[in-house]
Amino acid sequence: MPVAIEPQHDEHLVRAVTEAGGVVVPLAQARVLVWIGEPADLPPLPDAVEWVALKTAGIEAFRAAGVIDDRRRWTNASGFYAAGCAEHALTLLLAGLRQVHTAVLLGWNEEVIPPAVRTLRGATVAIIGAGGIGRELTPRLKACGATVLAVNRSGTPVAGADRTVTSAHLDEILTAADHVVLAAPATPETHHLINERTLALLKPHSWIVNVARGPLIDQTALGEALRSGIIAGAALDVTDPEPPGDDDPLWTLPNLIVTPHIANPSPDLTREMAPWLAENLRRFQAGEELISTVDPNADY
Amino acid sequence: MPVAIEPQHDEHLVRAVTEAGGVVVPLAQARVLVWIGEPADLPPLPDAVEWVALKTAGIEAFRAAGVIDDRRRWTNASGFYAAGCAEHALTLLLAGLRQVHTAVLLGWNEEVIPPAVRTLRGATVAIIGAGGIGRELTPRLKACGATVLAVNRSGTPVAGADRTVTSAHLDEILTAADHVVLAAPATPETHHLINERTLALLKPHSWIVNVARGPLIDQTALGEALRSGIIAGAALDVTDPEPPGDDDPLWTLPNLIVTPHIANPSPDLTREMAPWLAENLRRFQAGEELISTVDPNADY
Repeated sequence: MPVAIEPQHDEHLVRAVTEAGGVVVPLAQARVLVWIGEPADLPPLPDAVEWVALKTAGIEAFRAAGVIDDRRRWTNASGFYAAGCAEHALTLLLAGLRQVHTAVLLGWNEEVIPPAVRTLRGATVAIIGAGGIGRELTPRLKACGATVLAVNRSGTPVAGADRTVTSAHLDEILTAADHVVLAAPATPETHHLINERTLALLKPHSWIVNVARGPLIDQTALGEALRSGIIAGAALDVTDPEPPGDDDPLWTLPNLIVTPHIANPSPDLTREMAPWLAENLRRFQAGEELISTVDPNADY
Repeated sequence: MPVAIEPQHDEHLVRAVTEAGGVVVPLAQARVLVWIGEPADLPPLPDAVEWVALKTAGIEAFRAAGVIDDRRRWTNASGFYAAGCAEHALTLLLAGLRQVHTAVLLGWNEEVIPPAVRTLRGATVAIIGAGGIGRELTPRLKACGATVLAVNRSGTPVAGADRTVTSAHLDEILTAADHVVLAAPATPETHHLINERTLALLKPHSWIVNVARGPLIDQTALGEALRSGIIAGAALDVTDPEPPGDDDPLWTLPNLIVTPHIANPSPDLTREMAPWLAENLRRFQAGEELISTVDPNADY
């Protein structure tokens, strides 16, 4: 099985190809392309390429560039990203509830910090867009004593969640939740899903965590909600624009945590991706269904 | 059952006493004293007081004051503190591994932060002094994909841990661990348990979390290990002295997180303690064994 890895060499992925019984070849000879570059750099694809494996979970940039066609199969990386996103979402939610950011900035402050500390025990957490990340996040939240409400497009039950509903019930779930984790893809439907109206459904002690995509949140409305105490805090691993400008008002908010898109940090990316690629190559050779296949006609 | 709550009124504890079928009375008429003050303020106890319930988990200050006698029973609060300590330990470990402190200080820094991010998935975490906190922390760590090695005095197995050993095997466990959580009481045996020698057993990527008592760590040795890269970082909810002085060298370490003893923040303390007190009052009336009984002759 001839596999091209482009646009640069990667030792972890080469090993995965070899382990799966494949051979790394130039693109002109390949049946499979593993593309670890940007959409704009993708060259014209030979007809012999039957499958393109992308390294990102969110592929809206590839869709916008118009490169995803229906002449071959495409996969994204949501399979191996999910655990990292779930761990980072748990980290951000706990860090916010337990005021780690405030302690880092203020030091040993006994007036401000202890009264602001909250706990996950007994809290109700809504996961909006509960797919792969939601499946990974749910048992972590349950182990911390939280109640988990999952929302996804189809209402397909998330194992271990206390309740799963379709996105038609979003308002009801936001009203019931103490805290919210965003894990949905960036689509026209999820654009500014968190806005002035939906923020008002939350509680003064609520935290919002976003490990998905920046445009899910209307950041102007979020800033206003954080300044006026509509909600208690927010923790964002993704922003809009990304990165935020040096003069973005986000940076002035004491109840906001921002991390630089590190749910799956790039230095570890292809190492984490390798076993997942090997498994998908095995499936490809066996004629089985691939993990994380992209629908070329969908909007996410 | 006459119960005194001293030295100040507390609505949550009054409710617990009432729910358990007791009556709140002055100390002179009490069979049970719930003491929510400092050791130095404890008045001479009438002989009729059969049980004193303290509100702290670590009671070394009461031992040092010489107030714990063998003329009645004493209980500490390790029972209801455990879950809060476990959640805070998980928070500090995740915040350190995922560089939340660095992001709070440096903002969107893509050079420094992503290469320093680590994960709990596949990591081995040692819990030193694994009793109540260890029982609560273990399932949280397991849900995050970690391997858990528990160390306690007796070697009594901690449910869910991959291995439990006696403290005689401490060095072996520190050598095997990626990260360490301290959850032991402050005793002569645990004083400076983390020191120059034991720090050298850890790894350059190791994080140490302390949610127990400051004197478990030789802070001078810890500072040196953090400066020289012997370990990757430390996160402390307790310090020695506590609080650290404004000029403590701890404050200059970029790979150290300090939170102001908020594993169980004082504003919520008696509310959290209330159901636990009610249960212990029920046991007292029924002549059953009390939760968290203190051995008046032990050193912890």
